Amino acid sequence: MEIEEGLLSPDASTADIAARAGDLHVADIVEILNTRPLAERIQIVSGMSVERAAATLDQAGIDAPGALIAGLAPALAANIFRGVSVDRAAEIFRQLREPDRARMLGALDADSRAGIARVLAYAANTAGSIMTTEFVSVPSTYTVAQTIDHIRKVERTRETVYAIYVIDPADGALAQSISLRRLITGEPAAPVLSVAYPRAPITVAPETDREDVARLISKYDLLAIPVVDDRKRVIGIVTVDDVIDAIVAETTEDVQKFGGVEALNAPYMTIGFGQMIYKRAGWLCALFLSEMLTASAMQYFEGELEKAVVLTLFIPLIMSSGGNSGSQATSLLIRAIALGEVRLRDWWKVALREVPTGLTLGAILGVIGIIRITIWQKAGIYDYGEHWPLIALTVGAALVGIVTFGSFSGSMLPFALKRLGFDPASASAPFVATLVDVTGLVIYFTIALAILHGTLL
Amino acid sequence: MEIEEGLLSPDASTADIAARAGDLHVADIVEILNTRPLAERIQIVSGMSVERAAATLDQAGIDAPGALIAGLAPALAANIFRGVSVDRAAEIFRQLREPDRARMLGALDADSRAGIARVLAYAANTAGSIMTTEFVSVPSTYTVAQTIDHIRKVERTRETVYAIYVIDPADGALAQSISLRRLITGEPAAPVLSVAYPRAPITVAPETDREDVARLISKYDLLAIPVVDDRKRVIGIVTVDDVIDAIVAETTEDVQKFGGVEALNAPYMTIGFGQMIYKRAGWLCALFLSEMLTASAMQYFEGELEKAVVLTLFIPLIMSSGGNSGSQATSLLIRAIALGEVRLRDWWKVALREVPTGLTLGAILGVIGIIRITIWQKAGIYDYGEHWPLIALTVGAALVGIVTFGSFSGSMLPFALKRLGFDPASASAPFVATLVDVTGLVIYFTIALAILHGTLL
Repeated sequence: MEIEEGLLSPDASTADIAARAGDLHVADIVEILNTRPLAERIQIVSGMSVERAAATLDQAGIDAPGALIAGLAPALAANIFRGVSVDRAAEIFRQLREPDRARMLGALDADSRAGIARVLAYAANTAGSIMTTEFVSVPSTYTVAQTIDHIRKVERTRETVYAIYVIDPADGALAQSISLRRLITGEPAAPVLSVAYPRAPITVAPETDREDVARLISKYDLLAIPVVDDRKRVIGIVTVDDVIDAIVAETTEDVQKFGGVEALNAPYMTIGFGQMIYKRAGWLCALFLSEMLTASAMQYFEGELEKAVVLTLFIPLIMSSGGNSGSQATSLLIRAIALGEVRLRDWWKVALREVPTGLTLGAILGVIGIIRITIWQKAGIYDYGEHWPLIALTVGAALVGIVTFGSFSGSMLPFALKRLGFDPASASAPFVATLVDVTGLVIYFTIALAILHGTLL
Repeated sequence: MEIEEGLLSPDASTADIAARAGDLHVADIVEILNTRPLAERIQIVSGMSVERAAATLDQAGIDAPGALIAGLAPALAANIFRGVSVDRAAEIFRQLREPDRARMLGALDADSRAGIARVLAYAANTAGSIMTTEFVSVPSTYTVAQTIDHIRKVERTRETVYAIYVIDPADGALAQSISLRRLITGEPAAPVLSVAYPRAPITVAPETDREDVARLISKYDLLAIPVVDDRKRVIGIVTVDDVIDAIVAETTEDVQKFGGVEALNAPYMTIGFGQMIYKRAGWLCALFLSEMLTASAMQYFEGELEKAVVLTLFIPLIMSSGGNSGSQATSLLIRAIALGEVRLRDWWKVALREVPTGLTLGAILGVIGIIRITIWQKAGIYDYGEHWPLIALTVGAALVGIVTFGSFSGSMLPFALKRLGFDPASASAPFVATLVDVTGLVIYFTIALAILHGTLL
């Protein structure tokens, strides 16, 4: 199963790899290529057969295929590009610049050119941008046998033949989608529609977000979903393996965004140093500037701080607890919204769950905090002064308030983002922590003022 | 495409829904059922035809199918259970208790019983535990026509017929896997192996983790992958739709863990209050106890704090920056490791990237911090005292140190977890923040002592 270690080693010669390309699975060729610098990748692909090279570039996993194509000898590049499927060709085309774009388009026949143009017309991450125009369709006047014959003929040039789209010849609209498994069980002389389920086919529009396409394919266990225009004509299909790639890419983006990084859109090890700084510095600076409000809040309570330095000891502890409970609530709601378990209009139901949850969690931490202060005081580890019971009470009460605020605001943030038209998954743990930090300080000092007024403050 | 809103409304009667079940897509029935309390779900399923009810329970998306089956009239439950595919039956069986288990097993034929027993024998989240034993296999002595005939006969009882496993009749081992699309293009009288690619089939062991199964299916664009025993006999297959469900479940777990919550393993809205507290309180308390070290650290520097209260103003700002940069690095490395872009032995390459990245990011924040203090001082917004340039320098230097430490430790944490045999995705943003908070305080005060010694301290 595994690729021989020799070929993955940096010592393997590019000629050796090219020579072995005929025997290896294309996905393994891609894995080997991705470990090599661009110049060597170009050498290896140049040494492969055109058919093999096209199959390699057809893989979604290959890094920077545009640079690879642009680096090949022009005639070879054109030959290879011609063998790549339309959806992949469009993606590679996006990475090319002029004059490479014009050269590659010139190499294609009119049909492929039109297909690429259609895919390129749609915004990134939509069904239109990841669809392929190479699917099987037959008129509804065909019989089962005619349809199977047609599939035999076109099999080599279609991304999938397991879903067959039956078209109404009168208006070109999609009548039904049928599966190959049902087709081969049909009577050869029967009309092709005889094997269809009597139910409207599931379709998406070219503007549908790839996440929603993935949800439909997964919900209905489909192998492909047709993309139709407003007159119900099939303009392409999205297949299940495109969707898996899309889900994996979305997951990576979501985890990176939740960690407070702009989506890298490239493997960690290959991204340049400048790019890496760029993707991280933006959010980090924005958070830093917001967090400066904590310094302002503390300056505001400066008088209290000087009178009771003992209060500062618990600032990191209390603030981090608010951030942690907020981060928990945000991660739960991001997924609940993404999975469709919770809708935008359910926000108040969530709030009704999160407030008691926050109160309970805050009370648990508050009790632990009070016990900690009592033990330290009684055991003589640290002296919090004569008013230590009031200080313990302040810390306990502040924890209840801050953890409740953290759970509440952490859970509401994804809803707020969604309401404003952003991706709920843009809510990041650092963002929630910053939001809670500033408010948390104000809660802490307000409670301290109320409890310690007349004694310490 | 959408379900009529009426059926999704809580006012729709259970009888109405059951009556409409014949027309709806099973995935839509599941969506409606999931909005109802258990008692109503039982009523609805009882009102459906046995075939329809079995198809409904066959869907991966249905909530708590075990409780549903257990709540039905015994004879009906047995009839429905018989119609569920083996992999789903095994999963439902896991949720049942005695005497329901014995009753359900009694309803099955010997083959299905053996199939369920085989699936149940494997640990959760392995290929064995999510495989189905309902696949198509033919001996290698078959012709193309014989194979197609066989598929026509068994199509209704197999989860997929798009991958066909060709078995060596001598030892029962897997000889090749072929696709239905290749099969229908073959010469009817030719041996079935004539349409196979001359390459060893891709297989997994029953113990293979479902994440690795997903990676292989996605890498090789497969519709199913065979699970083979140590004698290369096929004991089951994992299909692409099981894998999508597995990827989605893993994503949810990963995001929840990164947010610092134990994986819920249930939809947000249906989980009980006690369970919700339980899943969140554990981590929250553990983090709280660790974060108490910040109070100890601050007690240790108490003398410095009393001499220079101005230092406390920047504690939240500096600490949160360390936590944020750590959270960024952790999220990047969790995904890089999950996608196989970085291996365990590459940890030092990552460290060599993260340290300069952290220094640069820290320097950017440090400069912003110094500018902030200078402006506030010069504009008279706040008076940091006569030594304000030294305080600004302390804050700037501390930011460089803490952001570097955050990037470094945040990036190393997933490696450390992997090395210790844990899931790298167990590294959570709150955990990294806590780790960095305690060290960050020590870094801050050490730098303050060095710079301010003889002036403020």
